[in-house]
Amino acid sequence: MQFNEIVEKLKQGQSSIVDFRIKNNPIILAAASLEKAKENDISFLDNNSQLNLRNLIKTSKASALLLPADDDYIIEIVKQISIDWILLKEPKIAFAEILEILYPSEIEREGIHGSAVIGENVKIGRGVSIGANACVGDNTEIGAGTIVHAGVVIYRKVSIGAKNIIHANSVIHSGSKLGDECVINANAVIGGEGFGFVPTSNGWKKMPQVGIFILKNKVEIGSGSTIDRPSVGETIIGEDTKIDNQVQIGHGVTTGKGCAMAAQVGIAGGAQIGNGVILAGQVGVSNKIKVGDRVIASSKTGIVSNIEAGKVVSGFPAIPNKLWLRCSANFKKLPEISKAIRQLDRRNSR
Amino acid sequence: MQFNEIVEKLKQGQSSIVDFRIKNNPIILAAASLEKAKENDISFLDNNSQLNLRNLIKTSKASALLLPADDDYIIEIVKQISIDWILLKEPKIAFAEILEILYPSEIEREGIHGSAVIGENVKIGRGVSIGANACVGDNTEIGAGTIVHAGVVIYRKVSIGAKNIIHANSVIHSGSKLGDECVINANAVIGGEGFGFVPTSNGWKKMPQVGIFILKNKVEIGSGSTIDRPSVGETIIGEDTKIDNQVQIGHGVTTGKGCAMAAQVGIAGGAQIGNGVILAGQVGVSNKIKVGDRVIASSKTGIVSNIEAGKVVSGFPAIPNKLWLRCSANFKKLPEISKAIRQLDRRNSR
Amino acid sequence: MQFNEIVEKLKQGQSSIVDFRIKNNPIILAAASLEKAKENDISFLDNNSQLNLRNLIKTSKASALLLPADDDYIIEIVKQISIDWILLKEPKIAFAEILEILYPSEIEREGIHGSAVIGENVKIGRGVSIGANACVGDNTEIGAGTIVHAGVVIYRKVSIGAKNIIHANSVIHSGSKLGDECVINANAVIGGEGFGFVPTSNGWKKMPQVGIFILKNKVEIGSGSTIDRPSVGETIIGEDTKIDNQVQIGHGVTTGKGCAMAAQVGIAGGAQIGNGVILAGQVGVSNKIKVGDRVIASSKTGIVSNIEAGKVVSGFPAIPNKLWLRCSANFKKLPEISKAIRQLDRRNSR
Repeated sequence: MQFNEIVEKLKQGQSSIVDFRIKNNPIILAAASLEKAKENDISFLDNNSQLNLRNLIKTSKASALLLPADDDYIIEIVKQISIDWILLKEPKIAFAEILEILYPSEIEREGIHGSAVIGENVKIGRGVSIGANACVGDNTEIGAGTIVHAGVVIYRKVSIGAKNIIHANSVIHSGSKLGDECVINANAVIGGEGFGFVPTSNGWKKMPQVGIFILKNKVEIGSGSTIDRPSVGETIIGEDTKIDNQVQIGHGVTTGKGCAMAAQVGIAGGAQIGNGVILAGQVGVSNKIKVGDRVIASSKTGIVSNIEAGKVVSGFPAIPNKLWLRCSANFKKLPEISKAIRQLDRRNSR
Repeated sequence: MQFNEIVEKLKQGQSSIVDFRIKNNPIILAAASLEKAKENDISFLDNNSQLNLRNLIKTSKASALLLPADDDYIIEIVKQISIDWILLKEPKIAFAEILEILYPSEIEREGIHGSAVIGENVKIGRGVSIGANACVGDNTEIGAGTIVHAGVVIYRKVSIGAKNIIHANSVIHSGSKLGDECVINANAVIGGEGFGFVPTSNGWKKMPQVGIFILKNKVEIGSGSTIDRPSVGETIIGEDTKIDNQVQIGHGVTTGKGCAMAAQVGIAGGAQIGNGVILAGQVGVSNKIKVGDRVIASSKTGIVSNIEAGKVVSGFPAIPNKLWLRCSANFKKLPEISKAIRQLDRRNSR
Repeated sequence: MQFNEIVEKLKQGQSSIVDFRIKNNPIILAAASLEKAKENDISFLDNNSQLNLRNLIKTSKASALLLPADDDYIIEIVKQISIDWILLKEPKIAFAEILEILYPSEIEREGIHGSAVIGENVKIGRGVSIGANACVGDNTEIGAGTIVHAGVVIYRKVSIGAKNIIHANSVIHSGSKLGDECVINANAVIGGEGFGFVPTSNGWKKMPQVGIFILKNKVEIGSGSTIDRPSVGETIIGEDTKIDNQVQIGHGVTTGKGCAMAAQVGIAGGAQIGNGVILAGQVGVSNKIKVGDRVIASSKTGIVSNIEAGKVVSGFPAIPNKLWLRCSANFKKLPEISKAIRQLDRRNSR
């Protein structure tokens, strides 16, 4: 695809072109990072990139660049370089759009593979693909255009909407309800029974987990992630919430819309997560905790009490991020602090 | 089921009825939380619930309530409300028993599915169910009443007792021995080879892992959890120990009876965990550590040295919980502490 | 096998025999730990073992021992005991070699199982074994001697070298490239799409993940571990790098040769890990961080900034291990420190 065609495509997208230069009008064959790009590659720089990345523009071998329009230093550089470029409000969105064009995804459309095992009274929509050795339980529904990859096991009475992609060997338990346009990555387990045991004089008694698991539209679940159904009521993952690999979400948790949870996050039973919450890697949230809208928790944070909307928190137990940064800086000085106190004490007791 | 029938059923259970009132004798169709209950629902309140939960009793739309008998405030409230109730020593156990009655589990009894692959010399007990596309290796035994769900892979020479439930796509490695009444949740991996590599001048040399993995009776293993077999000897999970999702247990670990391990706990090789130990979410235990009976570790604790029986520990490295709470409260004051020392120092050096 | 034969075998290995005693020349039937060994067992003691372990030599029921040659206390003990022994520079390597001899691994060689589903244009090398219900996508290559266990799903266009072992129900995504002699443990997922979403006014926009995932030779990946492919470029795991269970490695990460990563480590996108790096359990590494060669991070460390080669780090945020040990020791004293400051302050303000 030639560079001028890329400009035309982006005009129809969400990235807001501010300016561009078509000079060599190169053929663009691939996309790459600034460091690794070679001839006929297109590359991009994100808003607010570090200086060393911005300087890569001068030496990159890419044939075309997608650049932020709000950066005077970059605007200065592009005057001096000889390759074609586009300045945009959202260069990262532009790069995503270009990747979609350069690398159209090969959708597997094979209908129902002969080795798949389909239960009784299963409703399958138009254009559904079910892979080799997948199993679909009785009384389950699968909406139009959904792709179920090889080895997936869907239990009974599951309701799956349209245009979902369910990757290999993932498991969807009985009674789960999935919306449309969700992605379940490989080896994820959703709707499994919550971890509920009551201590008795005869050991643990299992609390039956008869609630249901609900995934709203456009949710993505990472590889190896596990989300449980509750004893009663519902576990709900809100629309457009994106969950990375190896995330654990306990029984009865609800999350709002548009959250992002990085890998190895763990959310204990009954926690209520607001809209637009961002949890970085290895964060933990205790059971029944309420996390307000747009809260951000940095990596390894342990949230053990309710957090108000809009707060940025860190550490364990979680405290405001700015305070935590100062406390951590002082943690390193603890040996000195101890020593200073001993000295002061000695001087004072003279 | 009518309320008076529920009273009769609970009399035969473990929840110890103290008092009850049958007035409306409603039909009970479902169970729900106090907040979400509607007509014909039964709900419950746990012992020592918070005041705001106890006050929900006044407004709940449930038709019947299971309540703690040891709470004077609740006993006062129930005199004023018009719905039927039962006061019990163990309302949570009563709720579990009611869920079992209202939602009898549908056991899948389908014998051996035609697509399952069964090896040579496999012994299968009465009433065993083996799901679609499951694989059972040579010389394996499966005890009476065990349910193996779709896609499960059981390697060779595995011994599985009676009445186990093995969920979809989990994997049981060669030589593993499972007792009776265990639950292995979806995508768990048990008996895999331990992580043992010896550094040599030619890189890592693998230590063969020829030990065996043993699960005693009534153990439950969460979705995506992994437990390894050792190089020599045994990895043993004790009777009635309950393990949540995404827990990692290293080679040669032994646990006692009746432990509970929450999600994302990691126990390194050779650790010895006593009876009745409770590890909260994301706890880590270092290799070869001994954790005494009834130890409780709060979430994210890192246990790097032996812990005596009965201790409650927190933090990393683990210290007594009460000390840790005070230390954490002071951690937040570190910037002030530093500042105070600088001021004292300045004053003193004048 | 008789003891003198074991001596001969070890002479051909890597463990460097220094001295030995053949007196009873027992038949060796099994290997066990010093504590659990019984007659006809061989056992070993590692270099620099603790005193209580060294004293076990005196009471062990083993019929033969592999012992470190550099330990005067042990050399003194062996003069007094009546069983046969070998003194070696590398007793642990000797034990690994003996396990290989005493417990030869049963390789499953069954060719392609009738229930496996093989796509179009798949190239399969000599001696390849493909287990029951495994699926291999179109245009994939599998090198000579590779074993694919039951239930494995390999997507399209994957290139797998020779002599790999791919355990049950693991998943290898499209475009992945594996070298030779790798081990992929059960339920691992490699080459899945990276977690990349760009915020827009309409919610999250997915960044297509069209890069590739590369595993060099002799890499081992633990059960339930997940490694993603990047948006552009490559995710690379270096030769002889060993990865334990439930490790998460983000898109675009590169690791050097000979690294070891313990269970539940998480490495965020774009991080660059050097050669010979050792990360203990539950360590986290932030995105785009550079970790130098031979860095060691103790358990639960959070690496949020670049670490120079050769450093040993601990804590979160990571600081030098020795400093962290002193800081942690002082953390426990924070309540006292606070109190001391209050007292000093009071005295000073008089």
